[in-house]
This record gives sequence, C-alpha cells and structure tokens, in this order.
Amino acid sequence: MFNIGVAQSGGPTVAINSSLAGVFCEAAKHSEIDKVYGFYNGIEGVLHDECVDLSEKLRTEEDVERLRCTPSTALGSCRHKLRTDNDDELRNVLETFERHNIGAFFYIGGNDSMDTVHKLSKYFKKLGKDIKVVGIPKTIDNDLVGTDHTPGFGSAAKYIASTMQEIIRDSQVYCLTSVTVVEIMGRDAGWLTAATSVLRVNGEIAPHLIYLPEVPVTKEKILEDIKKAHEKYKAVIVAVSEGIKTPDGKYLAEDNQSGAVDNFGHKYLSGVGKYLENLIKTELSCKVRSIELNVMQRCSSLIASQTDLDEAMQIGGEAVKFALDGKTGVMAVFERISDNPYEIGISCADIEKIANQEKLFPKEWINEDKNNILDDAIGYFLPLIQGEVKPFMSNGLPTHIKL
Amino acid sequence: MFNIGVAQSGGPTVAINSSLAGVFCEAAKHSEIDKVYGFYNGIEGVLHDECVDLSEKLRTEEDVERLRCTPSTALGSCRHKLRTDNDDELRNVLETFERHNIGAFFYIGGNDSMDTVHKLSKYFKKLGKDIKVVGIPKTIDNDLVGTDHTPGFGSAAKYIASTMQEIIRDSQVYCLTSVTVVEIMGRDAGWLTAATSVLRVNGEIAPHLIYLPEVPVTKEKILEDIKKAHEKYKAVIVAVSEGIKTPDGKYLAEDNQSGAVDNFGHKYLSGVGKYLENLIKTELSCKVRSIELNVMQRCSSLIASQTDLDEAMQIGGEAVKFALDGKTGVMAVFERISDNPYEIGISCADIEKIANQEKLFPKEWINEDKNNILDDAIGYFLPLIQGEVKPFMSNGLPTHIKL
Repeated sequence: MFNIGVAQSGGPTVAINSSLAGVFCEAAKHSEIDKVYGFYNGIEGVLHDECVDLSEKLRTEEDVERLRCTPSTALGSCRHKLRTDNDDELRNVLETFERHNIGAFFYIGGNDSMDTVHKLSKYFKKLGKDIKVVGIPKTIDNDLVGTDHTPGFGSAAKYIASTMQEIIRDSQVYCLTSVTVVEIMGRDAGWLTAATSVLRVNGEIAPHLIYLPEVPVTKEKILEDIKKAHEKYKAVIVAVSEGIKTPDGKYLAEDNQSGAVDNFGHKYLSGVGKYLENLIKTELSCKVRSIELNVMQRCSSLIASQTDLDEAMQIGGEAVKFALDGKTGVMAVFERISDNPYEIGISCADIEKIANQEKLFPKEWINEDKNNILDDAIGYFLPLIQGEVKPFMSNGLPTHIKL
Repeated sequence: MFNIGVAQSGGPTVAINSSLAGVFCEAAKHSEIDKVYGFYNGIEGVLHDECVDLSEKLRTEEDVERLRCTPSTALGSCRHKLRTDNDDELRNVLETFERHNIGAFFYIGGNDSMDTVHKLSKYFKKLGKDIKVVGIPKTIDNDLVGTDHTPGFGSAAKYIASTMQEIIRDSQVYCLTSVTVVEIMGRDAGWLTAATSVLRVNGEIAPHLIYLPEVPVTKEKILEDIKKAHEKYKAVIVAVSEGIKTPDGKYLAEDNQSGAVDNFGHKYLSGVGKYLENLIKTELSCKVRSIELNVMQRCSSLIASQTDLDEAMQIGGEAVKFALDGKTGVMAVFERISDNPYEIGISCADIEKIANQEKLFPKEWINEDKNNILDDAIGYFLPLIQGEVKPFMSNGLPTHIKL
C-alpha cells in the first residue's frame, strides 16, 4: 500500500479541478492506494512539503461535485521550472515523496509542467526509485502535442464564443461605422481565437476578421481588411490573438511591450487590442473599442462545457490507472475517434515527445486571405463545447470550494 | 382603437429586451390597442420612421421567451438628444406617430432617455395631442432617481460579483505578493462597484478595497491602503469605479484621458484600471494586473438575474397600464416595500423630477476609511440578484433573437 501525490501547475482553467477530482475518485477505487496528498502551489508545494490529505477536504460526493465546478486551481499553482544544473531540487522532491510514501505523482498542467514530469521521471528512473510520474494535460491554449485537445480548452472556447456573441450584439446597437477588436489569449497558438468561428453554426456572421499568431500579418494588411469589411458591415468585429506577429517575427504590438520575460523566457504580453484600437482610430477615424477578455477567459465557469469537465475528470482517473499499470514519464492523451458522432479514446504518450513543444493551429484551416477560419475547423471545435455545467449557487451567487 | 410605439435607448443591458417583451405582452391583453410598433435605434428610428410591427417577429411564446433572454437592445439604440432650439425634430416625431396612429409611446432607457420622454410629453401636451409618453427605466448604473432600482442593474451586479469571485480565485493561485485592480462601469454612481461587496454573504473577504466616484480619493491614499492590505493578504483585490475622482473633482486617471465628450457632454472614460496598474507597479514593485470588465458587464446574459428579468418584464407591462389610465410624462418606478421577505410595488413618477438627474450611492453605506462598503448595503443588493435565467442553447451556444 502506498500514497499518491497530485498537484496543479501553470495558468488556471475551469477544468483543472475536475481532473483533480478524477484522480481523487479513481484512487478511492484501488485498494493498493491509501491516501491522496494534494500539494499546494504545484512543485513548489512539493519542495516545501506543503500538502493536505484530500480526504479531509473532500468528505462527501457534494464536496467532489463542488470541486469539479470550482474554477481556477483549488490547490494553487506555480510557474517554477525545476533546476537541473545540480540535483538539489530533484533530491528535495524525492525526500518529500519518500517522507510521505508517495508511489505515484500526478502533475496537472501545460507545456512547462510536462517539463517537470519529464525531469522527475528521468531522475527517479536513474536512481532506480519506484515512483511513477504521470502528466495530466491542462491548458486553455490547446497547444500540447500528442493529444487531440486539452482539458480546459473546451470551456474556455465556449466562454469566449458565447461572450464574443454578446459583444457582437452590443457593438451592433448603434447606427455607426465602428470597429470592435477583441483580444484573446494565445501567445503562439491561435486555437482560442479561431474557436470564435463556431458562432457561424448558428448563423452569426461576425467576427468578420480573425487573426492568429500562426500567420504573420502587418498593420497595413489589417487596416486594408477592415476597410474592405466596412463596405459590407457597419459594425466590424475583429478577433485577434494576443500574440499576432509581423513577417519579421516580432509581436505586432511590440513597441507597446515592456520587454519583461517570465521564468520560462516567454515575453510578457499585453495590449495588441489597445494597440490596434489606437491604430484604427488614427488611420480610419471611426468609433473603435478594444476589449481584452483577460483572465475571465481562463477562470470563468459561468458557462463551462459539460463535455470538457467530464473529460477532464475522466483523464484524471485514467492517469491513475496508467500509473498502476506501471507507466511513468508519460502524459495521458485524448485520441479522437470521430467528430460526429463524437467519440474519444484515452491513451498515454511518452513525455519526451511532448514537453516544451507546442501544437499550432493547422494552416489548412485558415482561409486564403489569412484573415478568417474555414468551416472545416468547426467540426473539430463543436463537440468540445457541448453541454453546460450549472455552478453551485448560494444566495444568488456561485460558490467555490477551498482546499 | 390605436397603435402603440416602443423604442430602446442608451447603453445595452441584459434586461431591456425583457421590458420590451413586457410592453408587447401587456398590449395584447387590451382590445383598445391594435399593433405594437417597435422603432429601430431609439428616437432616431422615430425621426426616420423606421419601425417593425412586432407581431411579425414575435409569433410564438417561445419567440417572446427568446427575446427576454437576448441581451443588448434587440431594436438597436441611440444616444440622440432631441433638439429643442427649434421644433423641427419634435414635429418630425409627431408626424411619424400620427402616420402610424400611435396613441402611446414607451421609451425604455436611462437618464438621457428620460429627457426625451420629458420633451415629447411636454410638446404633445402643448399642442393638445392625445399621445401618451411613458418612460420605462433601464440602466445597469442604477442611477435613476425616483425608483428603488433600475431593471438591468440586478443582472449586471450579479455578473460583476460572480466574475469578481472568479477573478479572486484566479489571482490567488500563485504564492506571490500581488495586486489585482478590477475596473467597473460607473461614471458618477458607484452602485455596480459597491455590489461586489455581496460576495461577503458567502464568506468571501475580497475585494479588500472598494473605491466609488462618490468619495474623492488620491493616488497616495490608494497606495497607502494597498500597503496596509498587504500586511494581511498576499493577493490584494481592488474594485474601482471607472469614474473615481480626486478631491479637486478631476478624474483620477484624467492625464490618461482623450478629453473627448459625447453628445450629452459626458467625458469619454477609459483606463483608471490601467492607470492604477502602472502606478502600483512603479510605486510598490509587485505583480499587478488590471482587468476592465468592459461591455461584458452590461451585455452578458451568462448569469442573468431571474428577479431582474421578471421585474423588467413586469414594469414594461405596468407602463402600458399607466398609459391606458391616461398617464403621460411619467416613468414607471419600483418602490421597495421590504428587503426580507423581498417585496416590491410599481407606481409612476413625474418625469420632470427624474430626467437629467442622478441617484448616487448613499454615503452612509460607505465605511469610515472610505475604501469599502458596509454590510448595511448587502440587504439592498441581495434580492436583486436572486435566481438564474438559462440562455436558449443551440449547438452548445446561447442563441439570440433578431428583430
């Protein structure tokens, strides 16, 4: 009998707690697993040995349901990159795990978190330690390789598309020539921005222009596109990824940036929406508004996708089974069997092929004029946003669990 | 037998179409009313005689339900201030109404729209024309005098509080000293910002600081308050109205403003959140993020208040009855009979006492240190955010009606 550990890492999503619930519930089914320790603030909580026996916090089925519906990371998060220039941190992790008799560790996170899974599993193997390390995918960005999609993406896409539709309603009320620029997360991968095209399935024409980081673009081209769109539509709606780039590889709004980088060397971004707002105001002299969906697109569970939350729970549970089957240094992944009827399988992939890589939006789903998404992509997106999860309400407000 | 006209004006809300549905449904109950004409883009549609017989668009009960759940103004809107330097525009309105045999006109809007109700009713009285003009309140700002609250406010408050709670979850995931500034609409009245205090009813401590336009504040005071809050909380959350002012009456972020004004002479505002973000980053050297809830706070029906939508429909219906009772130059208003159990009455008030005025947030509900809201206000807010309206869904997305 052994205990298992679980932690959450990277940016919050609406589905990451559902994966945590999946790990917890699956573990309860296996007699060889005793306690499930939740480590606070990702790998930092492991380094500092800060954890909680989850059964103390999740006492009833309702507690588990409430966890599933709570957005953001209930155990906290981190953006810590494990040091490998010496073994201090890796040894520190091992000591914590041995102290708690941890036989398997599950790390729910994105690209950078899979780097941690990779390093830990390699280290434990090298020392001949029988501690399995399994990654559970999580990111609204949908940019992990080796998996059809990532838990968290469906809910973010559903929120963004629904909110975009409301912004379209809002922007069309006045009889004015106008431009509304909606800035959506996505540094290098444009999945979330592209997902606004699903509105077409219900007859919505806007957003009229969609720009992704995958396709370089100049400010002149964007202004030209807007002018052309204004010939047909008074209120032009533009969906734009935060990370759109010029042909020379620079961020379009680079002049506006601070130049600061995070621990993984990524540039801090903000403001391509504001940048375009000012540009359009100056060059086209019409009413312009820019809207940044900001953290709401990753943390709002007002319209979470039932499919996303169910799958997130399921893949958390499967990860436990993979570890019990002796797998380590792997990430649980989705394989799409068919779009319609939607069918998905879960398997696992070697973490070496996944860590520190990015899956970009396919170029073949972008139109020839490089300013919109082809209908072919909609069949991919649609199944991921089906069904709604009603939040737990109290006093007219959603309630969240705290671990 | 006569027809009636209805139009929507000012900024969109989530409840304004419910009031439109209220007018339509009540009219159907009265044999003296024949058609209900919806004029597009507020009073501009009257001036240009652009209207629709609503029975052509609202054929079934489901159509009406869908209208109730559609955010923003289904008939479009305007910010047109009726000219009174000569009678051209007023005469133009009269001609349109006589052409369509309009016996009563209902204008759903805020402060500025009530100015239109006032001018039209006075003009028709002066000419001895039997056309009733009745205002139906609408504004997320809750700043109309003479009514306990305004339709649209409850849903906006519910959205803002719920979203604020998600932002709190998001901002607390990292083990970092941080400040999150959430900028909320409210040029002169801080009702929406103050409504974030309702989260306390479910045990949420944040937002730790709340600043309203009603109480002048300096940047030094805000920085001092944040420093003090950091002694107790790592992740400090600040809710701030877009229109907070310094003791000399200037907007705090005035240096950042364009100086542009709208047709009613109001300054265009943006950026107090960004202003504070930069200020805090420079002065306190910690992680700072600012979030603007932007148009989503007025147009998102992802978590509309059932109470708000029901009351909006009801007050639309009552307005029709007031006109049939011979009332003109009035606005339908809510009178609160009790908080708990919540009980409300609907009467009407003389438009002269309402137009072009603002109801501010009561000073006695603000704490002594002028940076938070007292619990006394929560009893006022709570009844207005009760119940949720589920959007009409199709293909995993909310659907909207178009008129």
